[in-house]
Amino acid sequence: MLVLAKRDNAIHERLTADLADVEARFAAELRSDLDCVNELVEHVERYRGKMLRPTLVLVSALASHPDQPTEPTTRPGHRIVATVLEMVHMATLVHDDILDEAELRRRGATINHLAGNEAAVMLGDYLISHAYHLCSSLGDAEISRAIAHATNTVCEGELLQLANRNNADLDERTYFEIIRRKTASLCGVSCRLAAVLNNTPPATTDALYHYGEKLGVAFQIVDDVLDLTGDERTVGKTLNRDLEKGKLTLPLIHHLASLDDTNREAMRELLEAQRDRSLDPAVRDKQAKLLRDRLNADGSVEFARQRAAELVASAKAQISEHLPESPARTLLLEMADAVLSRKF
Amino acid sequence: MLVLAKRDNAIHERLTADLADVEARFAAELRSDLDCVNELVEHVERYRGKMLRPTLVLVSALASHPDQPTEPTTRPGHRIVATVLEMVHMATLVHDDILDEAELRRRGATINHLAGNEAAVMLGDYLISHAYHLCSSLGDAEISRAIAHATNTVCEGELLQLANRNNADLDERTYFEIIRRKTASLCGVSCRLAAVLNNTPPATTDALYHYGEKLGVAFQIVDDVLDLTGDERTVGKTLNRDLEKGKLTLPLIHHLASLDDTNREAMRELLEAQRDRSLDPAVRDKQAKLLRDRLNADGSVEFARQRAAELVASAKAQISEHLPESPARTLLLEMADAVLSRKF
Repeated sequence: MLVLAKRDNAIHERLTADLADVEARFAAELRSDLDCVNELVEHVERYRGKMLRPTLVLVSALASHPDQPTEPTTRPGHRIVATVLEMVHMATLVHDDILDEAELRRRGATINHLAGNEAAVMLGDYLISHAYHLCSSLGDAEISRAIAHATNTVCEGELLQLANRNNADLDERTYFEIIRRKTASLCGVSCRLAAVLNNTPPATTDALYHYGEKLGVAFQIVDDVLDLTGDERTVGKTLNRDLEKGKLTLPLIHHLASLDDTNREAMRELLEAQRDRSLDPAVRDKQAKLLRDRLNADGSVEFARQRAAELVASAKAQISEHLPESPARTLLLEMADAVLSRKF
Repeated sequence: MLVLAKRDNAIHERLTADLADVEARFAAELRSDLDCVNELVEHVERYRGKMLRPTLVLVSALASHPDQPTEPTTRPGHRIVATVLEMVHMATLVHDDILDEAELRRRGATINHLAGNEAAVMLGDYLISHAYHLCSSLGDAEISRAIAHATNTVCEGELLQLANRNNADLDERTYFEIIRRKTASLCGVSCRLAAVLNNTPPATTDALYHYGEKLGVAFQIVDDVLDLTGDERTVGKTLNRDLEKGKLTLPLIHHLASLDDTNREAMRELLEAQRDRSLDPAVRDKQAKLLRDRLNADGSVEFARQRAAELVASAKAQISEHLPESPARTLLLEMADAVLSRKF
């Protein structure tokens, strides 16, 4: 669960209670009469992460509450939307683990590692269909349609990423298009629907959407930088997978663009070696370290972090401009900053 | 497309037009601004099959029309539900191909064979989320919830099947539970929702649900028998996969139950050999033929066909009892019979 500043006790209590409610709804919705299904679901619940998307829904709900009550207030619809979005996100995690052949996720065995790719595919589908099942209990077609649209966009982002695997010419524009779709669309819709459920004016709804989307893009840039330069014990999942899977991320795209033809060719060969499973792992690790050092030395890592920082600043500006001052608004601003330091 | 008896021209024209409408909606809903997505979708459309579920929706719609108009009439909602259910079904096909490592599906390359497991996972997800996106355009939460519930059930069936892989003690009860969930639930909901959209009385709605469910179970039994005994060129997909994947189906379950301990042990060893990829394929094929001959000789295949025939009779009884006579009702009865001869 997100580590929240305890400065405002009332908000802290509201969010703690609401996130517990989200967890309970999550478990209740997914309960089956089949033991084999429940075992897999329990395993998924155990690797629940930061609950970023539910937290975005709930804090956005508080910050956009139309009449600023003295007690922090969310609606049941907010808790349901928060649960639905966490389910969709969990489904993408379970399916991403198939994509990435990752062996570690949140310091636990992944579903595909534990029960095979086939169970992971079906469990992901089970999560998606339950997400829509729960969502339809709201009886609000606009909400259902918005969540389905965001999920369509996530899939498009993943497919665009796959189509660009091993593409050493991937440009910045396409990279941003990929992460906007695969990561940011779900964050954007989390914030936007919180406002929709509060019947806020369009300016507020739009501001929250843009806040969530920019925060999501920044989050993914930082995630990609961590995959390249992070420490596996701290991050809690298998790292250096992007290189192995032929995914170019922002520091590398920036670095490649700065090279002349000869050096770019040399770098491509180095990237190819990172995907070569027959290569001695010790050699590969050494080359990966060399690459990391080069990206650090020429400022490519710093360039990526800088882009994330600009996006966070722009996300915060949306909020400062369009939402009234409140403790919840402060929390939204802090959440954006936290993306950069990855305290959550 | 389902080969329909042309006896009733008006119905035939209505269904042909409606199924064309379903195909057009399918394509329009899935269109993306990304070429890489459209290419995969076009590939999926090319291996569209019998359109059993859309046809069940549309014929049920005609047969349950409350005021029996002279011209066969369906509502726009029927076409949308038919498209949604076809999308959900296509998603399970795409994901099933990952499950089954099948190399052939409808005589074309499967998505995973063409573009990798990872693209197949994401494309399936894209189909599911678009199904819900389209469904929410109806603005009817009951319909959305029913479709999501049926999809939950499909996933449970698949997971129950996976949990029983290589289980030589699988009993008939569990086998029926698996196929009721993974196949019949979607057929049942197809027929039921057609009636719901016509505001029919509960007796009609229930009768159509039971008809669809029984037809679906019978369909899967016949499908399993074909996997065991069919001809690949006629059926149009890779056969004998159930044995290779350790899936016990009705003829084998019946056969195993008839054996004494010694013979059952021998049969288990034969089944294990069918899953052994290191075995010479010629030896494996010879053993598979031996097995088929035995299941034919002792009446186990006939037993399975008989169970399918009983279910078809029971499905037809639901319709004859609860729906008024009409050309569309006759078509429902013919569709049930066609499951046994697998003309569709």
